[in-house]
Amino acid sequence: MSIGPDDTRPSGGRPGTTREQCEALDAADPLAGFRAEFTLPDKGVYLDGNSLGALPVRTAERVREVVEEEWGRELIRSWNDAGWFEQPYRLGGRIAPLVGAAAGEVVVCDTTSVNLFKVLAAALRLRPGRRTVLGDGAAFPTDLYIAEGVTGLVGGARSVLLPSTTPEELERHLDGDVAAVVLSHVDYRTGELLDMAAVTAQVRAAGALMIWDVCHSVGALPVELGSCGADFAVGCTYKYLNGGPGSPAFLYVAERHQAAAEQPLSGWFGHARPFAFEPAYAPTGGIGRFLTSSPSLLGQAALGAALDVWERADLRAVRAKSLALTDLFISLVEPLDGVEVVTPREHHRRGSQVALRHRDGYPVVQALIERGVIGDFRAPDLMRFGFTPLYVSYAQVWDAAQQLAEVLESGEWREERFNRRGAVT
Amino acid sequence: MSIGPDDTRPSGGRPGTTREQCEALDAADPLAGFRAEFTLPDKGVYLDGNSLGALPVRTAERVREVVEEEWGRELIRSWNDAGWFEQPYRLGGRIAPLVGAAAGEVVVCDTTSVNLFKVLAAALRLRPGRRTVLGDGAAFPTDLYIAEGVTGLVGGARSVLLPSTTPEELERHLDGDVAAVVLSHVDYRTGELLDMAAVTAQVRAAGALMIWDVCHSVGALPVELGSCGADFAVGCTYKYLNGGPGSPAFLYVAERHQAAAEQPLSGWFGHARPFAFEPAYAPTGGIGRFLTSSPSLLGQAALGAALDVWERADLRAVRAKSLALTDLFISLVEPLDGVEVVTPREHHRRGSQVALRHRDGYPVVQALIERGVIGDFRAPDLMRFGFTPLYVSYAQVWDAAQQLAEVLESGEWREERFNRRGAVT
Repeated sequence: MSIGPDDTRPSGGRPGTTREQCEALDAADPLAGFRAEFTLPDKGVYLDGNSLGALPVRTAERVREVVEEEWGRELIRSWNDAGWFEQPYRLGGRIAPLVGAAAGEVVVCDTTSVNLFKVLAAALRLRPGRRTVLGDGAAFPTDLYIAEGVTGLVGGARSVLLPSTTPEELERHLDGDVAAVVLSHVDYRTGELLDMAAVTAQVRAAGALMIWDVCHSVGALPVELGSCGADFAVGCTYKYLNGGPGSPAFLYVAERHQAAAEQPLSGWFGHARPFAFEPAYAPTGGIGRFLTSSPSLLGQAALGAALDVWERADLRAVRAKSLALTDLFISLVEPLDGVEVVTPREHHRRGSQVALRHRDGYPVVQALIERGVIGDFRAPDLMRFGFTPLYVSYAQVWDAAQQLAEVLESGEWREERFNRRGAVT
Repeated sequence: MSIGPDDTRPSGGRPGTTREQCEALDAADPLAGFRAEFTLPDKGVYLDGNSLGALPVRTAERVREVVEEEWGRELIRSWNDAGWFEQPYRLGGRIAPLVGAAAGEVVVCDTTSVNLFKVLAAALRLRPGRRTVLGDGAAFPTDLYIAEGVTGLVGGARSVLLPSTTPEELERHLDGDVAAVVLSHVDYRTGELLDMAAVTAQVRAAGALMIWDVCHSVGALPVELGSCGADFAVGCTYKYLNGGPGSPAFLYVAERHQAAAEQPLSGWFGHARPFAFEPAYAPTGGIGRFLTSSPSLLGQAALGAALDVWERADLRAVRAKSLALTDLFISLVEPLDGVEVVTPREHHRRGSQVALRHRDGYPVVQALIERGVIGDFRAPDLMRFGFTPLYVSYAQVWDAAQQLAEVLESGEWREERFNRRGAVT
């Protein structure tokens, strides 16, 4: 089965879409101009921006400036003169509007896992009579491993995994011992979006603290940590935000918790007077007490360039295009043999990726990659395709669906070279 | 008082040295060729490489390659194809010979503070009946703050600060409750070098684990973690190693501890099967269990370029020149009015920096910086000067001493602009 240029196959109750129609959608796309802000491979369709975002055009120059000028020429003076000390706060303040937070509620530092450790430890201290951390058994595992790590260190604490994140299941587990609940806003496999406001309200009504992992939603849709009443959040910047491989992560602490929150990765960057070199720790006021130590200035430089792009992007337009792209992809691929669309159809339950179940998902993804359509695979049988509205076009979505149809029809994925397992896909 | 070109003032029992003699020393310096491996300011003397090392010439290009080619062009494929997953191990293996370790005993990740948290938590678990962590009250404070953080999280544990690091003081504190001792190999203020072999033996004889912070010794002198019997170590790469601002840190775990050591920042990069996405944590074998999550690939690229330089450097020659440079500087500045040399004179007790006490150290350092001699200041009254043998020449040491003499003689440091406090120095 292939999708020809004039194909108008009906799918899922929607009329089929031709490539010409996609080109017309691109011509009318208010975000189309953003594509020129990225350096992208000449050929192919990149649908893995939910794992590693693309390179903004100005990033290389900004990194070069930090390396050659701030470091190479000014050396140690740049800590003061180039504002290196302020960067964690300044970058945090620039991420804040993307997650519905005030500037003083977000700081950029370390990695998502390290930051989750900090906020989990802080949450356990803020709820001293309670010893349980609830997580989602289907969450990206590093969150579960970190919950295991922090509860294993704190006497009497325990990490409990939910079998699902339905309101009923949450209710069943939200007893008086739950100190904190950690959930992903968007599921890394299925792309399912949780109702942040409803879940947060339910958790807080039970006296627990709500910690959101927004790795798969920041930059993909408007995130409203503040108005939803979230207590803490962590997120990475290398997916939809395009900060670069291993770019620094961020964390959010609601202003109401900042005076009392204490975290154990209490390095000198979180000290009230770091250059007094006092032997005893005394946390600084505000979000700064969640800092630990020297940030990667190169990583921060790349993130700064990526956030320049986000300053011009309207998140509502991003969300509208994201839903249109994923709608389009779903409608084109759902008729394909052996393919099951796992991602929810309802807009309010969908992030910005589409997960397809296929018995031979691994080699199918490899064959697609050889054809220039970059998605990825998550065991045991999910093919993931991320749709990043700033640089993916409707015509590319059409092309990707066409390539998938051709791979499945040809059976080329059965070739041996597509069935050798690498570390990632 | 000034040091004229033909000055032969005696100092500390040694004959004075002329600039011409320094130039002759430079001409005979076996490490002189390394200066061309660094991009340095045209003018001035950089004596703060003990805080932020200089930029290696090849770093900018290597970072550009990672940004534009590995990230920009190959995108997600670089995790496999460019060996991103292997980088923490590969870089660790390249640092290993600089600290006297086997390749599988060192891994590059996170920051020094975060890594100290990991090894401290691991050490407490390896000594379950013991609850005390001993530190040096004069250590770089982040180590003390982290010890406070980890012991505060672990029920019943406590952090105790030594008033000094003499064998007698250590003996007095090394009771049966001490699980681990954390000490800096070189004191960040005074530049004093501890006897790693003797201290480690004393600590281990008391049944405790020895954790070294080698931030101020790695790249400054041969460090022998393995033959000294060290249990754990942490270090940064942005000082003598020249990895760049906020470059990734490293940690060392003696092979004998790796199978049993468990650390609580148990992110997915430390999992035995990270891409199986299992809900329960199961640490991988070896040093990898001390990894947490995605490293900064930009920071790692810069570190890789810096280590290229170190592959050609003989650490014994580095140590010999370091001692000669610091000897020279001490001999030139010790006669200056109001200056007290705090750094030990004995070679076996000296790292690669010289600390001078001066009542008005802060403005004196500022006046020196304006003259192009970059050192730094540590409260309350210490001026620090770091001597990095790969790119500091004997003539520069002479020039720096001359500038210091002129600043002190002129009294220019009394000017108001030198007395305004910035965040650092």
